[in-house]
Amino acid sequence: MARYIDIHCGFVGVTEQQFRSAHDSMLAVEATEGVRFEKAWLDPESGTAFCLCTAPSREAVLRAHERAGQPAAEVYEISIEVAS
Amino acid sequence: MARYIDIHCGFVGVTEQQFRSAHDSMLAVEATEGVRFEKAWLDPESGTAFCLCTAPSREAVLRAHERAGQPAAEVYEISIEVAS
Repeated sequence: MARYIDIHCGFVGVTEQQFRSAHDSMLAVEATEGVRFEKAWLDPESGTAFCLCTAPSREAVLRAHERAGQPAAEVYEISIEVAS
Repeated sequence: MARYIDIHCGFVGVTEQQFRSAHDSMLAVEATEGVRFEKAWLDPESGTAFCLCTAPSREAVLRAHERAGQPAAEVYEISIEVAS
């Protein structure tokens, strides 16, 4: 298992409730791909969303997003993490 | 105060120790701009780094990065956050 951050676009003007609903659609499918979504952040002005997850592979992250109808534009494997 | 995620490029092949050192350089200047860096993640294969911070403005985030010699390519204000 590894950790990933993925980036989505196209969420301009999305509300917290709508974003939570989109996140719930990810949670509904994550088990089928062995993915565990931890957090998601949204900048509604630019419409950019970030998800932090644990998954068996980059491909699993992409598939989970596609299953949920929320395709990710970019997926990064973040093998290094620093907390202040 | 608001929360921001910023993205940096150019960290290809950077080790955990080197990344921690870069993060420490951010922590050394953050107070001058009222920024609080919380976490940083790195994908050393693509050289892409992500920082999560709290700050008074986008400009303060940019200035803190410049002071530390770690200019950020993109800064997003993330007013919406969902945790699983």
